[in-house]
Amino acid sequence: MSAAARTTDTRDRMVRAADQLFRAQGLHATGVAEILERSGAPRGSLYHYFPGGKEQIAVEAIAHAATTFCRNITAAIDANDGSLPAAVRLYGNAVAARLVATDFLEGCPIGNSAIEGSVGSAAISAACDQAFREFAAVMADHFVEQGVARHEADGLATFVVSAVEGALLLSRVRRDAQPVVDATERVATMLQAALDAVDRGVSS
Amino acid sequence: MSAAARTTDTRDRMVRAADQLFRAQGLHATGVAEILERSGAPRGSLYHYFPGGKEQIAVEAIAHAATTFCRNITAAIDANDGSLPAAVRLYGNAVAARLVATDFLEGCPIGNSAIEGSVGSAAISAACDQAFREFAAVMADHFVEQGVARHEADGLATFVVSAVEGALLLSRVRRDAQPVVDATERVATMLQAALDAVDRGVSS
Repeated sequence: MSAAARTTDTRDRMVRAADQLFRAQGLHATGVAEILERSGAPRGSLYHYFPGGKEQIAVEAIAHAATTFCRNITAAIDANDGSLPAAVRLYGNAVAARLVATDFLEGCPIGNSAIEGSVGSAAISAACDQAFREFAAVMADHFVEQGVARHEADGLATFVVSAVEGALLLSRVRRDAQPVVDATERVATMLQAALDAVDRGVSS
Repeated sequence: MSAAARTTDTRDRMVRAADQLFRAQGLHATGVAEILERSGAPRGSLYHYFPGGKEQIAVEAIAHAATTFCRNITAAIDANDGSLPAAVRLYGNAVAARLVATDFLEGCPIGNSAIEGSVGSAAISAACDQAFREFAAVMADHFVEQGVARHEADGLATFVVSAVEGALLLSRVRRDAQPVVDATERVATMLQAALDAVDRGVSS
């Protein structure tokens, strides 16, 4: 393996480790030493790869999580005959299963960072905003392709992100995946209604 | 003022100060010294009134915020001719105004604590769960009085809490109240549709 490949690999492992830790325990509770330990990177290498320290690696971990989410939802749409409502239901069930499997520790890494970061760091807030916008855009763009008007598609997609993020909060503190399952079912029904309106030629 | 009244007053001021600080900057970022300073309580009195320290005052601040919310939404329903959809719209506009007025610092104190507390403290998680349940119950009970079936009322009310909590997250990081205004408008429309179904005799 070349030195360049090794560098990329170490850096990526650190971002992935940070993403996992922020997901499970949040931004404030995660120390730089813990990120190094989980990634197996040598002590001192965090500031080598991330001169901006924890804030920089947090911003990159948020972007990494957003990219992963967008890839997964696109794959789920493709795997469900192009149906976004079916993909959203599938996603809700997958998140519910992960909540149960991680003893309700792993919610949405963006949601966690959005609250914790929105006080102390404009860079982290901006990264969360960008991530939420990407979540909404991947759904809205698909909906526009299906004939939904751009304004309505954007509004619906943003609402889906809001509803699912909030439901994750409720599920975590309730230690019960039902709010996530119910919320994704309700938004899937709303999305289907918008598609049905297009089919009937009454899209707003 | 009697000594007992003074005690109650000091204790209440500390809970209200904690609520305000957690609202604006979250649980982790708020120190015990800051709560004392804002409440004007003497140094050392926190552990006198709250032997469980920051965790105990956090649990009480969450309960205080939940009581305030439930009183406000009940008053809003009464002020809007018993219409929950109108009260939810009013609430959305009020929250939007507060977000703008506080430079997007003040979201929902329960939402903030739910994320931060759900990792480290079972007591804080349980207090947030209880608060979210009270939010939902005040809306669901009103809906049952209007003739909506209990199961549907509970499901809808929980979804309203999820959607608004998530929208608050998006609004904070976007520094734009629109997600909260849009989400409350959409859930108000859903609530109105459920009431209309009762009027048509088709409630599930």
